[in-house]
Amino acid sequence: MNRETPLAELVGGMAMPTAHFYIRNHFPTPARDPARWRLRVGGLVRRQLSLPLQELLRMPSEVRTVTLECAGNGRALMQPRVGGEQWGLGAVSTAEWAGVPLLAVLHRAGLDSAAQAMIFKGADGFERGLTLAEARESEALVVYAMNGELLPRQHGRPLRLIVGGWYAVASVKWLTEIEVTDRPFSGHFQTEKYVYQWERKGGLVSEPVRYQRVRALISEPAPDALVAPGEVPLRGYAWSGEALIKRVEVSVDSGCWQPARLLGGPDRYRWRRWELIARLGPPSRRVRVRARAIDEAGNTQGDQVEWNRLGYGNNAIQEVAFRITPSVPMHTGHSRPPALPALGARLWEGSPSDTPASL
Amino acid sequence: MNRETPLAELVGGMAMPTAHFYIRNHFPTPARDPARWRLRVGGLVRRQLSLPLQELLRMPSEVRTVTLECAGNGRALMQPRVGGEQWGLGAVSTAEWAGVPLLAVLHRAGLDSAAQAMIFKGADGFERGLTLAEARESEALVVYAMNGELLPRQHGRPLRLIVGGWYAVASVKWLTEIEVTDRPFSGHFQTEKYVYQWERKGGLVSEPVRYQRVRALISEPAPDALVAPGEVPLRGYAWSGEALIKRVEVSVDSGCWQPARLLGGPDRYRWRRWELIARLGPPSRRVRVRARAIDEAGNTQGDQVEWNRLGYGNNAIQEVAFRITPSVPMHTGHSRPPALPALGARLWEGSPSDTPASL
Repeated sequence: MNRETPLAELVGGMAMPTAHFYIRNHFPTPARDPARWRLRVGGLVRRQLSLPLQELLRMPSEVRTVTLECAGNGRALMQPRVGGEQWGLGAVSTAEWAGVPLLAVLHRAGLDSAAQAMIFKGADGFERGLTLAEARESEALVVYAMNGELLPRQHGRPLRLIVGGWYAVASVKWLTEIEVTDRPFSGHFQTEKYVYQWERKGGLVSEPVRYQRVRALISEPAPDALVAPGEVPLRGYAWSGEALIKRVEVSVDSGCWQPARLLGGPDRYRWRRWELIARLGPPSRRVRVRARAIDEAGNTQGDQVEWNRLGYGNNAIQEVAFRITPSVPMHTGHSRPPALPALGARLWEGSPSDTPASL
Repeated sequence: MNRETPLAELVGGMAMPTAHFYIRNHFPTPARDPARWRLRVGGLVRRQLSLPLQELLRMPSEVRTVTLECAGNGRALMQPRVGGEQWGLGAVSTAEWAGVPLLAVLHRAGLDSAAQAMIFKGADGFERGLTLAEARESEALVVYAMNGELLPRQHGRPLRLIVGGWYAVASVKWLTEIEVTDRPFSGHFQTEKYVYQWERKGGLVSEPVRYQRVRALISEPAPDALVAPGEVPLRGYAWSGEALIKRVEVSVDSGCWQPARLLGGPDRYRWRRWELIARLGPPSRRVRVRARAIDEAGNTQGDQVEWNRLGYGNNAIQEVAFRITPSVPMHTGHSRPPALPALGARLWEGSPSDTPASL
């Protein structure tokens, strides 16, 4: 089951309501009894561990807000087209995760002096690795909760790895085993999938996907929205796996790049909200808006990304076109939503909190 | 409709899932058409305003995580008992709110030189005031969204005032009118309700409730939980409307006060999570845990609060008793929840995200 985040329906949120969080699963969702769940830690360790959930819940905890993005986010926009899940731009979300530092779990097992890397195994059969240095640098967590609730099934109940700043493939769901090894993992999802494959003169060059590439997305107005003339809010989110967001710039109708305002504080693992109130008119014309982010390491976005065979890391600048119209239809009845062109209008009919979640 | 937050079911969250947010409404929930909604700004202003929602959505926005607590939180624990809603300790929650600074709305209207205060009027008939200085100091917002979604009906859809650090009575729901005045408001909910009434020698002394009093609550273990011996996590939340939380201290079985670890960064308007892993044994005994918070202004909590006639501001130190037992029952079937004594065990059966919200 795979599902995108309706980014245009996120109103001001830093964290994403769980019911809207995008879903990307490779295999059917495993259903196991949390009471019997064990996190096994083996390989090059001094003590093999088989930790019941209760043990993890008793360890010192951390809470962190982390943006997860699928490495294939934007794949459908890549030219020439490539196979794989045809993600638009909704394979990204942010949530607050609670759990135990991965290093604390490894510390409990005790690492052998030859230990260099780990393989994380999910109950669905998914496997992915990190080196010890990568695990340290990303402050990886073994989490049991999301947005204040125990992990929902689709998001890895009861245990999931969260690797901040990395494309979400590293954040293995339904985590059952950590195998400590003396070399980096070279399994299917590490070397055959989730790798950039560049066509170069000498042949195909491969490189595993790692950090989320710097990116700004536009959440408002929605594409093809009808917008009244005057002051029009342009809003969205920006993030980068490699460094803090330095600024976001917006261009209207190919005009100069203007700096947007960044909301909230800087945070290494979390997207930031940005906003620019633009004065737009006259009516009855189509407006094109583009946004790009620049991070503290100097990374930014281009009009296109270098094409790669599996379609990863497409952080090309997004363009949203909408229409300025003098008479935005105003709905007056109760049975249908009013026209709120700058937002997903149907939200006013009933927010997800009022209705059953669609999970 | 009034409902408490099940604090013991909040797993690591800084923000509260909307479906769990406590509810305190004085009158039936008004149902109006958001498309026809107007926020009127009148009284001592240069321009009377009647702002449709669309106008507010177009103004520069702010997003802020704010803890709201009912002034009557803990009233049921007050001795001698007092009338009113018999709140335990669950009339407190935290959410992320998005909207427009109140000052920006007032700026648009333009204040008359005699302006000193405001009355905020809800569509349910509720009225409450702030002085201009108080509005500035609390960085009050007029919000339209909660936790990334447009406000749910029970929480004030489509507009609500949010006054950070104040007891939630100030955060008027279903906001339809702001009347600017030359003197502080003296209506029913300002001077007859939501006031401390102290019995003093000279008679009754009244003082309106304002800032949330400093307080630590224990969310884990739950009262009367069965807990396996060994390392036992003691966890909870702490906040103060007057100043940042400086530290939280925990006492086990009336022993000395030990400092707990504070999680997350300091934030003026938001509670902080705290944690202390205690080594507890031997089995088969009852353990009593107490927690108290100290803020940067030097405020702390006592064993009791001064009794007041309407039962507000009861921030007396909370005590939670639970039992250490060698054999915490371990459930093995799928149809019922496993035993996870330190958490609301039923959560494993299905988190709120998997099931219809109970709003």
